[in-house]
Amino acid sequence: MRLVPYAFALLLLPLAPAAAEEAAPGDGPDDGIATFTLANGLEGVVIEDRRAPVVTHMVWYRVGAADDPPGLSGLAHFLEHMMFKGTETLDEGEFSRIVRANGGEDNAFASYDYTGYIQRIASDRLDLVMSMEADRMANLAPSPASAISELDVVIEERRQVVENTPGGVFGEQRRAIQYLNHPYQRPVIGWMHEIERLTLDAAMDFYAEHYGPNNAILIVAGDASVEEVQALAEQHFGPIPPNPNVAERERVAEPPHIAARRLEYRDPRVQNPYVIRSYLTEPRRPADQAEAAALTVLADVLGRGITSVLARELRVEDDFALDTGAFYGDTALDLTTFGIYVIPNPGIPLEEAEARMDAVIERFLEEGPDPDQLERIKTQIRASEIYALDNLGSRARRIGVALTSGLTIEDVRAWPDALEAVTAEEVVAAARAVFRPETSVTGWLLGTGEATGDGPTDIGIGTEILGE
Amino acid sequence: MRLVPYAFALLLLPLAPAAAEEAAPGDGPDDGIATFTLANGLEGVVIEDRRAPVVTHMVWYRVGAADDPPGLSGLAHFLEHMMFKGTETLDEGEFSRIVRANGGEDNAFASYDYTGYIQRIASDRLDLVMSMEADRMANLAPSPASAISELDVVIEERRQVVENTPGGVFGEQRRAIQYLNHPYQRPVIGWMHEIERLTLDAAMDFYAEHYGPNNAILIVAGDASVEEVQALAEQHFGPIPPNPNVAERERVAEPPHIAARRLEYRDPRVQNPYVIRSYLTEPRRPADQAEAAALTVLADVLGRGITSVLARELRVEDDFALDTGAFYGDTALDLTTFGIYVIPNPGIPLEEAEARMDAVIERFLEEGPDPDQLERIKTQIRASEIYALDNLGSRARRIGVALTSGLTIEDVRAWPDALEAVTAEEVVAAARAVFRPETSVTGWLLGTGEATGDGPTDIGIGTEILGE
Repeated sequence: MRLVPYAFALLLLPLAPAAAEEAAPGDGPDDGIATFTLANGLEGVVIEDRRAPVVTHMVWYRVGAADDPPGLSGLAHFLEHMMFKGTETLDEGEFSRIVRANGGEDNAFASYDYTGYIQRIASDRLDLVMSMEADRMANLAPSPASAISELDVVIEERRQVVENTPGGVFGEQRRAIQYLNHPYQRPVIGWMHEIERLTLDAAMDFYAEHYGPNNAILIVAGDASVEEVQALAEQHFGPIPPNPNVAERERVAEPPHIAARRLEYRDPRVQNPYVIRSYLTEPRRPADQAEAAALTVLADVLGRGITSVLARELRVEDDFALDTGAFYGDTALDLTTFGIYVIPNPGIPLEEAEARMDAVIERFLEEGPDPDQLERIKTQIRASEIYALDNLGSRARRIGVALTSGLTIEDVRAWPDALEAVTAEEVVAAARAVFRPETSVTGWLLGTGEATGDGPTDIGIGTEILGE
Repeated sequence: MRLVPYAFALLLLPLAPAAAEEAAPGDGPDDGIATFTLANGLEGVVIEDRRAPVVTHMVWYRVGAADDPPGLSGLAHFLEHMMFKGTETLDEGEFSRIVRANGGEDNAFASYDYTGYIQRIASDRLDLVMSMEADRMANLAPSPASAISELDVVIEERRQVVENTPGGVFGEQRRAIQYLNHPYQRPVIGWMHEIERLTLDAAMDFYAEHYGPNNAILIVAGDASVEEVQALAEQHFGPIPPNPNVAERERVAEPPHIAARRLEYRDPRVQNPYVIRSYLTEPRRPADQAEAAALTVLADVLGRGITSVLARELRVEDDFALDTGAFYGDTALDLTTFGIYVIPNPGIPLEEAEARMDAVIERFLEEGPDPDQLERIKTQIRASEIYALDNLGSRARRIGVALTSGLTIEDVRAWPDALEAVTAEEVVAAARAVFRPETSVTGWLLGTGEATGDGPTDIGIGTEILGE
């Protein structure tokens, strides 16, 4: 999801305006990124940066919730939890204890197209974390008891991240009808009734089918050279044979979307009703990122910040909405969504909010972007890209997401230029192409008149679950 | 689907009013139904009826489109076609040629929960058709060339039964969002892009997984005793070993339905726009048919004939609608739907049609059924049941559908009494239970103003595909 990094970048922009004004170097041959591939298929990516004696060490697997077997949604995520439950030589929880005892931190995350493991630690401990990561790539051996108790943890996690928020529940229902056939219609964390059916056996079968060096990407960012990382990788991952069960991911495809869908969810906890509409569309494709770049800029033009089209018309010129926004999931292996939302001021019916939202889009399609605003947006994007270069963890992350979503390092490198090259005409063309009602789901999240207080509103569009 | 048999029964009622007035005997211990089970698991059901020297011979498999592997929707139906393409000893098409050469007719059908094969032939040819049916249960061996050409036949069939009618396309889209997780969301015939991926190998894998005596029900109705049928079954099916791959069907379950859904489909071919709403609900359950019986009566009370609630208010008292109706899929292995629809007079907006439909239902929930109408409906149902007893093929069919949908012969026998026992209070209670907006899908089928002519309107609620 772009929303979080953007918001983050925006918050930090005032601190680095000078950088934002300078030309973006972009990722390029001099960007410190080096790669290698081991004989067993493990891909390595190193971003050398000697500014601090720390490394971020990640292993990404090309498998995620979209690969969960039917009826066992949540399995990829459950396995991600079980990866902390011990191997043939490490006890349950020992992995994280050792990382912490060595001054590091670790975590894991799962989404539709990837599952990843990350440690941040002093660079002289890279050898240690890599040896443990290689160990659990091949020798996972959790106890049945640990699986039973971890299932409770996952169930509780579902309560927290989905059921505790109306936006979470609503987002899940919208997704279920956004996709008519594809496994993206299922929640990453799994439907509750299916989580309850998960077993250690199922997780180990999934592990046996999808984990192994030939389905993994090692990314090390920080105080290490590619030579050092490759030598360590040869030592730790090199002895693991390729997993012959790993197959090319080929997901079920969508039938044509020909009928606009709507749904309405009422929840007593809703404080601020909103309307949200999402459209099925293409993500970035290898060596073909122009349209995705235009959609990325379009999302910003329509929904990013107070000068965006939706905000200007519905919040600045007219005090109509509490919040407005747009989103685009630029990186995905299969089809993604583009969306817009309006949270109207209290008391305004959603019918009216939707009509206003439609009218803003209608006018935008006629008039196109304001040249000054487009220039500001592109400056912001440029600044975000520069900021991203400064943040090693974020650079490593982008590479991991891209490589597990069918893109290449070259695509990652070319992305800032693709964004930079987007013209006003392309933004309008992208808008005309994406706003096809027949691919859309329009959702109304409503209260029941019982809500009190004024808590935050969750738009429910995130798809990644952070592990621990 | 109940719609077709009901419409049929109504057409014939005037010809048999006397029968309709007499007490319904109901299926019972004296109903001529006898059963047996072979050692290999094949279940046999015989309905002896010596009035004519013919038999209906059917083999039903407990497998259907809901068991299609993800990404290969349409496979069960494709296999049904391939069952006519030859065995180790019979050439392609020879099965049907032999049946016809012997004065018989044959066909096949597929739905979500079953696939069936049927011949109607002189009773002295029962031995012949059973020997051929047993042969293709175990020895199917179609040529790759036949699979390639048959795939074109299926693709053309999809064009005919789905794509050639706006109601077919619309029904498919509605179903895709009626179910959020369950394979009933996929069309029986398969999505076109998945039909195109079907192969002989996939069909033979499916055959090897699901076909065999232990997953089959033999039903013979007509001029044959259970002793004769059992002896023939021992001879022809007896030697086939049980298929060890056959597993209990356990389909993916639905998550809670919590958000009312809508969809809108525009098609230039639509002559009569309509609104249709369906709700997720339970079908008949073994030894627990009272609620399903009430829903069956409710569907008739609301939608069957010109005296039904919807018709009376929207067609008789007010000339508002061209047609109205209600439907309930009483027999299914998993969750089913209950629905209502209104086809308003030309020019009336669907918004108004929906509001009127809602108002009729609202008032019905308050007032309950008119006692006279309920009595008439129950008389009609009784007549239909009697008619069904007269029609051997229909009795055999009901048993096949029931036994492949988790019901028993006892449930089939008890069904007329269950319908007979339904009270006005139960009808209202069933209506209150089933009309839960959060489980509903409301569909609008709209034209584009380009249609001409005045052809039939397809409501798009059928789920069975007749083979040939």
